[in-house]
Amino acid sequence: MRSSSGISRSRRDGPHRKGLVTTAFRGLTIAVAALLVQAVLAAGQNDPLPSWNDGASKKAIVAFVERVTKDGSPDFVKPAERIATFDNDGTLWAEQPIYVQVQFAFDRVRALAPQHPEWTTKEPFASLLKGDMKSVLAGGEHALLEIVAAAHSGITTDDFQTVVKDWLASARHPATGRPYTRMVYQPMLEVLAYFRANGFKTFIVSGGGVEFMRAFAEETYGIPPEQVVGSSGVVAFDFNNGSPRLLKQAKAEFVDDGPGKPVGIDRFIGRRPIAAFGNSDGDLQMLQWTCAGAGTRFCLYVHHTDAAREWAYDRASHVGHFDKGLDEAKAKGWILVDMKNDWKVIYP
Amino acid sequence: MRSSSGISRSRRDGPHRKGLVTTAFRGLTIAVAALLVQAVLAAGQNDPLPSWNDGASKKAIVAFVERVTKDGSPDFVKPAERIATFDNDGTLWAEQPIYVQVQFAFDRVRALAPQHPEWTTKEPFASLLKGDMKSVLAGGEHALLEIVAAAHSGITTDDFQTVVKDWLASARHPATGRPYTRMVYQPMLEVLAYFRANGFKTFIVSGGGVEFMRAFAEETYGIPPEQVVGSSGVVAFDFNNGSPRLLKQAKAEFVDDGPGKPVGIDRFIGRRPIAAFGNSDGDLQMLQWTCAGAGTRFCLYVHHTDAAREWAYDRASHVGHFDKGLDEAKAKGWILVDMKNDWKVIYP
Repeated sequence: MRSSSGISRSRRDGPHRKGLVTTAFRGLTIAVAALLVQAVLAAGQNDPLPSWNDGASKKAIVAFVERVTKDGSPDFVKPAERIATFDNDGTLWAEQPIYVQVQFAFDRVRALAPQHPEWTTKEPFASLLKGDMKSVLAGGEHALLEIVAAAHSGITTDDFQTVVKDWLASARHPATGRPYTRMVYQPMLEVLAYFRANGFKTFIVSGGGVEFMRAFAEETYGIPPEQVVGSSGVVAFDFNNGSPRLLKQAKAEFVDDGPGKPVGIDRFIGRRPIAAFGNSDGDLQMLQWTCAGAGTRFCLYVHHTDAAREWAYDRASHVGHFDKGLDEAKAKGWILVDMKNDWKVIYP
Repeated sequence: MRSSSGISRSRRDGPHRKGLVTTAFRGLTIAVAALLVQAVLAAGQNDPLPSWNDGASKKAIVAFVERVTKDGSPDFVKPAERIATFDNDGTLWAEQPIYVQVQFAFDRVRALAPQHPEWTTKEPFASLLKGDMKSVLAGGEHALLEIVAAAHSGITTDDFQTVVKDWLASARHPATGRPYTRMVYQPMLEVLAYFRANGFKTFIVSGGGVEFMRAFAEETYGIPPEQVVGSSGVVAFDFNNGSPRLLKQAKAEFVDDGPGKPVGIDRFIGRRPIAAFGNSDGDLQMLQWTCAGAGTRFCLYVHHTDAAREWAYDRASHVGHFDKGLDEAKAKGWILVDMKNDWKVIYP
């Protein structure tokens, strides 16, 4: 250290030109070193999808992105039109044994129960509060919708964001013990980042509640609220003690599922995606709509085949029912991700 | 040229060190020259709003942008939260003597008439086709809505974009003879560009039809389809000869006007704007919602005061009715742009 420092000083003591030469040399050395470091880093970071095993799925993703982003290629798509849509439940995060938002609704009803004494005798609330989940689920979709409506109404949109964030911070998945936001799929986080790094705008298009998803999508997925499309309830504008507010009503307004997905894409995005990602029959029309467009298109289904690390389910499952979509993916040659074999890891 | 080139060569012929020194000097000279050019350009481009006269309105716009973008300032807003919403009719382009989209609907019904022989005897179509506009307008809002519904349905969303673009390319304003897309306000185009240059996402939030506006918003305003919020009709997904399509129905779905504006902002953007721009009572709730948020906020009304270069109207006008909003702007100290005195030019 000392000797090297000494040499440096002695050179600075030399004539002006010599000093400049030294500075130029040093600048060059630093520049060359920086270039070398960059090259080494680039080589190490060459793989945009490190959690994906090398195979057909990964190759197809990379090939698509390279085709549509290569300037001068006949498949080139200008950045403004690089829209990619992603289902959420079962595509970006886990959805078993029950949708996260339904779990939230159960917990929220329990938290609100002291303000609703009538629930102790009114179904499906009474069964839920007694912990009799069999009776709750026996009530079918109607009972679930009543619980979801009660959990998502009578609150301002601002307060609802806080409630969801607080719940996500403390709630844990019954099987894994993880926070739900740590049950997102690492390989899909890499796909989101890879697409965005290549000029895509990434959107969530999900049957989940739009305001529920917005509470975590930005931090968890890097997707801002204005790029989240989802189901919604009626919201009313009024004044409360002179302050304007938006109050959530117990009435469905839009169901962003099945044929609702292309409708939601049209309404919120106004441009047909060139890539779409899903995992269930509820995503089928979104993929049909996306891949029926002109030019190069990309449709991908995540197939839950990993009973050991996640869950294995498709045609027989109620949650994430995947039957017609599975047939159509095979018939049309869409990418069918085999979670067990395509993904090195599941969660971050 | 020759002599300079010769000098350069002779230097390169010198010893290695001397060559390097020359290169270093030349590099420095180029760098300094580049900095000087940048400084001169910056001085020339210092005014982000050249079509605005110096005055309170312009000062307020610039002061707001500087406050929320200055790193370390207590008013700093991070880029993701820099959302600005703009009404369209009367705020970004002219709306007199009749909303552009209503003019489109009239022309579209005329174009579709051969396929609708029943219209020759059915009101309000019969009067419209006879050119009896007095009778059409006597039918009031109901008659107008019937015409608008007929003009906006029975067509796929893709084809509708083409129809609107074709119409905008050929239609001319009855008073100015200009294409409608050349009746946008140059000072507001500068505001849009200035906000975007400062990290804002600019959104249209308008009572106009979302698909009508998307047909020109990107080219005219630099606002992509996914940043246009507007009124919409029901859209149905189905298959036509095996191809999926989205077909526009003759049924209103959402009216993005008055209290519908904060509701639309919540639904589509999911984040409260920090700046909002309007020109009529239909924008009042959007401005109330925006400026009731915490932190630094900006609300601006364009007041049509220029009978010579555009139109002068407010409380008495049906189109762009501006009465309660005018009172509230004064009471709350929102910026009230005096079009006649604040704007050097109206159109590009």
